[in-house]
Parts: sequence; C-alpha cells; structure tokens
Amino acid sequence: MITAPRIGLDIGGTKIEGIALDAAGEIIARQVVPTVPGPESVLQSTRGLVDTLAAAAGLPLTEFAGVGIGIPGQVDRASGTVRNAYNMGLSELALGEELAARVGIPVSLDNDVTAAAIGAAHIMQLGGTVAYVNLGTGLAAGTTIDGVPVRGTDGYAGEIGHLAVDPRQRACLCGQFGCLETVASGSALKTHWPAGGAHPGRTLLAAVAAGDSDAKQALDYLIDGAAQAVRVLGLAVNPGTIVIGGGLRLIGEPLFAGVRDTLTGWARASEFIAALRLAERVQVLPEGSPAAAIGAAIAVND
Amino acid sequence: MITAPRIGLDIGGTKIEGIALDAAGEIIARQVVPTVPGPESVLQSTRGLVDTLAAAAGLPLTEFAGVGIGIPGQVDRASGTVRNAYNMGLSELALGEELAARVGIPVSLDNDVTAAAIGAAHIMQLGGTVAYVNLGTGLAAGTTIDGVPVRGTDGYAGEIGHLAVDPRQRACLCGQFGCLETVASGSALKTHWPAGGAHPGRTLLAAVAAGDSDAKQALDYLIDGAAQAVRVLGLAVNPGTIVIGGGLRLIGEPLFAGVRDTLTGWARASEFIAALRLAERVQVLPEGSPAAAIGAAIAVND
Repeated sequence: MITAPRIGLDIGGTKIEGIALDAAGEIIARQVVPTVPGPESVLQSTRGLVDTLAAAAGLPLTEFAGVGIGIPGQVDRASGTVRNAYNMGLSELALGEELAARVGIPVSLDNDVTAAAIGAAHIMQLGGTVAYVNLGTGLAAGTTIDGVPVRGTDGYAGEIGHLAVDPRQRACLCGQFGCLETVASGSALKTHWPAGGAHPGRTLLAAVAAGDSDAKQALDYLIDGAAQAVRVLGLAVNPGTIVIGGGLRLIGEPLFAGVRDTLTGWARASEFIAALRLAERVQVLPEGSPAAAIGAAIAVND
Repeated sequence: MITAPRIGLDIGGTKIEGIALDAAGEIIARQVVPTVPGPESVLQSTRGLVDTLAAAAGLPLTEFAGVGIGIPGQVDRASGTVRNAYNMGLSELALGEELAARVGIPVSLDNDVTAAAIGAAHIMQLGGTVAYVNLGTGLAAGTTIDGVPVRGTDGYAGEIGHLAVDPRQRACLCGQFGCLETVASGSALKTHWPAGGAHPGRTLLAAVAAGDSDAKQALDYLIDGAAQAVRVLGLAVNPGTIVIGGGLRLIGEPLFAGVRDTLTGWARASEFIAALRLAERVQVLPEGSPAAAIGAAIAVND
C-alpha cells in the first residue's frame, strides 16, 4: 500500500520509461525518452523526465514521496549505486545520490527485474507468493510475497538465468557453460537463429510458419528454457502465480502455449511436479504494462 | 520473537525428537522416542511425548502456546493435515486436529525441512536471508527472511531436490530423471555405493581412505550435488548464509571442504558466481542441534 504520489523510471538499453503514480497507485502521467548512454547523459535525461512527469501530473516535485528507478546491472540499493550496466554506458554510478541532488527528493534504486516483479504483482493484483520471469536480452526472475520483493543479501535474488543446467553447455557471458540464459533469452535467440537479425523475436513466428527449421528449433529452445525457469521457481518458492514478462513476450501465444504444454507434459510424468500446478499458474504480463517503472515507484522508501 | 513457552516435535522415520522452549526460546526439556508407524501409534507417542516434555519442564500444558510439529511428506499447514509420509505409515492424517483434541492446546504442522530452516536460523542467530539445505534421505531446502520462512503457496517451497539437472539422468522416485536428489542425498548414496549397506554415510570415509573407488565416486557425487544445491539457492534467493544440515552431515569436513572447494572453483570461472560469495557463506548446522523441533516450536501460531 502506498500513501503518497511517486515517480518510477525503468532505464533500459534503448529507452527510459517513466510514470507518475497518485497516492492510490494509479498512473497519472507517462512518458518515454530514448536512452543516451553515459553517466552524464543518463543523469540529464532522467532529471528531465522527472520534471516532465511532475508537470504532466500537475504536482510540484515536493509532493512526491520520491523517485524509484529500475535498472539492469548490479544494483546496491543501500548506497543507490549501479555497476556494470553496460548497455547504458555505466560502469559505476552513484545514480541515487546524484539524481537526488538534482531533483531534491529521495531516489531509490532496484534491479529492473525485481522492480518488474513488484509492478506485475501490483498491476495484476496478485497476493501471496508470486514469481515473475523476465524473458528479455537475458533471463532473470523476481519473487514477491504479498507485494514485498525477495531481494536477497546483495540484490542477486532471482538470477536463475545463470543456473548451469543445459547439457549442450553453450558458453555464457558469465563464464559458466549451459546457463539457462543460453537457452531462453533474447541473446540465446540470436545465437540459435542468427538469420533472425537484430530483432529476431519480431520475425520468428513468420520464419517458423515458412518452414525455417533453425527458427523452429530456436523457438523450441525458448519454450523449453522458459518452462525450465518456471519449474525452478516452482520448486524454489512454490508461487501461486508465475508471471511471464519481458521483450520476448511479443512472440505471443505460440510461446506461452508451448511453455504450458511443456509444463503439462512434465506434470504428466511426475506426480510431484503435477502438485505444483505450474501450467495453470502461468500468466502473461498484459502487453504495454510499464511493470518495472510502476514497481520501482512502489518500492520508493519501502 | 516468541513470548510464551512452546513444545516442538520433529517426527522422523526412526525417531521423534521433542523439545520444550521457555518464553525466551531456550530449551528447558528434551526427549527422544522411537517412531512406531501408523496413525494411532503416531498419535499415542506424540501425545505421550508432549506430556513428558511438559512434566520435565515443570509447567502445566495450558502454559504452552501450543505444539509445533515438523514432519516429512506433504503438509497442509492450514488444515493441519499430513499426506504421503510413508516412512511413518501415514497416507493421510489430520494430525493437527487429532493431537490438539488429545492435548487440549493448539497444534501446528510444518514440513520438517521448513521447520529445520527456522530452527537453524534461531540456533545460529542468523538474520536476513538464510537458506538451509537438508542432506537427508532426500534433498530439500528452506529459506527464512529474518526468521520468517518462505513457505510458498502449498508448502512446497524449497523442494529443489526435484530440479532435473543431472545429465546422467538417473530415475527419481518423483517420476523425473536426473533430479538433484538422485545425485546428493542418502538415497543417492545407497544407489552410487551399494556396498555401503544400510548406513553408508557412517562408513563412507573409511572406504574412501581404503581406496574404494565406488565410495570415492559416491562422495564426489555428493559434493557436486550439494554444491549445485547451494548454487541454486544462491541464484534464487541470494542468501547471506547457507546452512547445511541433515543426516549426511555426519560425513563431516571432507564433505563440507569438498563443497566449498567446488564452489570456489565455480567462482574462479565466473565473476558472476564469485559475486554470490557462496563458499564463504556456507556454514554447517552444529552437531546434535534439534533444529526441526526448535523451528516447529517457534512456528506455533505464527
């Protein structure tokens, strides 16, 4: 439950999505700007976006509880520092402190997937134990319990994309082999289907329909890896709902139906897996939901 | 924090371990009785044990907040029902309700590993996110956050023993193949080293020292699977401490040193895994700690 308006920003590799929430948690302003990499560019554009959102909401900045930011990379929430956010050209930036000095209200940071997990539970009104799987450039997850995220000790909770489980043992950027992220993610899709170009998720289904066997295999890998991610979360935290989000959602129903079918097949083979009711508990984040921006806003000062 | 005395029972396949805690959480009575399988036998012996513990504590039963029970099998905490606890001869028993009717105070049920996770955090005074890995007949885990367990939706949280990750693909009782439990557990040890007899954990090290190559391989499997379990928990919930408990603890330092070495090796290969600081965060549950009984007691009425 929130009690004051707040601003949320989801900083990604190509765009920054911003929203303002009123005290009831409803979106009262929304704005997207392109990401310009580098510390000073990120600070300038986030600062500008905060001002624009406050103006659009018709409230002075001092009326907001603060600004919440969801960002990839290694986030130290306590100090407000982000490291290794390479897509944004940030090796290390005290983003919380620096932006707070410019906007004059508190700024809190979260990992973008943790923020999306909080936002998904809010948007979809899901209580209890909820897992969120992000199929983006990478694969990561978040868990909320009655809306409160499981952040872990250093902000790494949910990094199941680096479970080394795949017998094909493809090299992962993390240094391991066979990570789930090498099976089911945007980067995996590019590896498995190089003919798909820069945005393979957009053209995958058409290629599958046209009989491209590499595209078909890439889709099958995605489905299998996403189902594995759901099973990992099912066994680790036993969620009542598993929400699938992230950029690869655009592949749509053939992906989700495939994941559900895979889970149903596993349940048929194992009473134990059947008891987790994974297939029926998978839901898809509604299209166009700014989940990470909303979640980051909700997590301000919590 | 507890505020009233309570009784905790850990019902296992061979024995029932009981303790009474005072209002400060200190053990004021402790008693172990053998398990006699079957619903009526379990009810009679738990009832007797509750009376014995109260008498030993010098308090009337009505002074206790209740009785907490940790038990394997499928536990429905809300209804106090346990199912499929085959070692105890219980296919389904409303243990909570039936025992409460006999002792006249509230009775609450938890999965034994969840109870042990709560107890381990209490005994070892660990706050924040703590994972507990139980290397027993099977392999399972529990997570607590500031002492509060992550139970999940149906009580299955922590069942990472049924992650199907092992390329050797041994059949698991759950119906899947290659479960972590087929690699690192008491039952896996019997499969990998049949010459070890009924209690292979007790004689494994001597056999390894004597040059038994099957015993050596069984130990290596145990080490690898336990390290994998630690990594799964590290990635899923990012604990500040990972406690190893369960019957296979008796193998002792060669097992734990092996787990730490394996984790150190993985950290050397991957900066990402290194950031989780798994090797230095592994601790061993002190020997003889009745963690599940204590945890079940603490969880009464929470």
